[in-house]
Amino acid sequence: MIPGQTKAVILLSGGLDSSTVLAIVRSRGYQCHCLSFRYGQKQDIEVQRAATIATTMRVAQHMILRLDLDTIGGSALTTDIAVPRDRDLKEMDQEIPVTYVPGRNIIFLSHALAWAEVLDARDIFLGINAVDYSGYPDCRPDFLHSFEQMANLGTRAGSTGHPFKLHAPLLELSKKEIIELGMRLGVDYSTTHSCYDPRGELACGRCDACRLRLQGFREAGLKDPVQYEGDVD
Amino acid sequence: MIPGQTKAVILLSGGLDSSTVLAIVRSRGYQCHCLSFRYGQKQDIEVQRAATIATTMRVAQHMILRLDLDTIGGSALTTDIAVPRDRDLKEMDQEIPVTYVPGRNIIFLSHALAWAEVLDARDIFLGINAVDYSGYPDCRPDFLHSFEQMANLGTRAGSTGHPFKLHAPLLELSKKEIIELGMRLGVDYSTTHSCYDPRGELACGRCDACRLRLQGFREAGLKDPVQYEGDVD
Repeated sequence: MIPGQTKAVILLSGGLDSSTVLAIVRSRGYQCHCLSFRYGQKQDIEVQRAATIATTMRVAQHMILRLDLDTIGGSALTTDIAVPRDRDLKEMDQEIPVTYVPGRNIIFLSHALAWAEVLDARDIFLGINAVDYSGYPDCRPDFLHSFEQMANLGTRAGSTGHPFKLHAPLLELSKKEIIELGMRLGVDYSTTHSCYDPRGELACGRCDACRLRLQGFREAGLKDPVQYEGDVD
Repeated sequence: MIPGQTKAVILLSGGLDSSTVLAIVRSRGYQCHCLSFRYGQKQDIEVQRAATIATTMRVAQHMILRLDLDTIGGSALTTDIAVPRDRDLKEMDQEIPVTYVPGRNIIFLSHALAWAEVLDARDIFLGINAVDYSGYPDCRPDFLHSFEQMANLGTRAGSTGHPFKLHAPLLELSKKEIIELGMRLGVDYSTTHSCYDPRGELACGRCDACRLRLQGFREAGLKDPVQYEGDVD
């Protein structure tokens, strides 16, 4: 760690987007404090990948917290509701899918906020984006703005003149643009994990997350370096 | 459970305030879904008391979730920072005390929101109050209003025309008024726990929470039925 370096808290899921965000934050000279969650997700492998990425990118700190979102339920990511496969990319824009986890980003951001307050960090980064956002209400710009306002009323730091700032540097980028940016910043996408429904280490290639990711690599003229269960080309 | 009864989610800490809120919600005819947290608090006994209260009040459901707020730290309630004793009640209004847990109410409410969404409940109740609020920023009316706005942007239900409503029925009441209301509603305060720094089952009588509670009972002309470590009269 470099003394006097500005601290940032980064939500790191182990996926393509948040790994790119971490590379962006690092390139801006912040001291990186990464936060991941074991929240009862089926794709628990993403937490292991987050740890690998945090180590590779030499972050100042990586904290993994537990949450019981599987006890609350209500999502295909935390219960035995089936993860949809082979949906058309246009179809994803129509309605909020069953992979939506009620309150997840709100709960994640609340913890990031708490940790930022303890660290005396003002900047919180997350990898949501509004272009390929797959219909999730907690990935929209107006939600983000509203969370920031709430955070600055409900915390000691925020309410005493040291406001928090939420940053979503991928918000207006397509998956293709995110991948191109990450490649320029040296992200090793082979260690990231995006799939909602993996078989061990293998991504399914058919869930919304895989399809958006694969399309992004295709549009960028690149081959996705992760291993898939079947043929995805 | 009565078919067709309106569901409510209630944050139940096992303390005097939230137990009174539960009695209020029950008296209004809601189906009561209570939520408590093992968040790494020293006063873990409050969770046991919450379970007793939930059973006594015959709630529809009581869910206890884990949180790692002690890993995040930053509070006298979750770390070895000493809980202040013998503070003057006026002193409590001066600044945010070390018993403030960064982000706690935001994190609690986020989980209540997630559960309400899964239950298809619209009403969330919590026991904060602005009179004896002990200086916490996450107990203020403007915070509450802001959380509600954020919640209705960041959830499926809220963003599709089924908004959530936060209720803080104790917001404008003094501790004395809360106790008087609870007594009328039949709350058994002997099973509640408010102390920040208990010795086993015994309340310390000297932390902010005990002092506010004791003053409330004194002003109501009643004896607090819980057991204290020393002489508190």
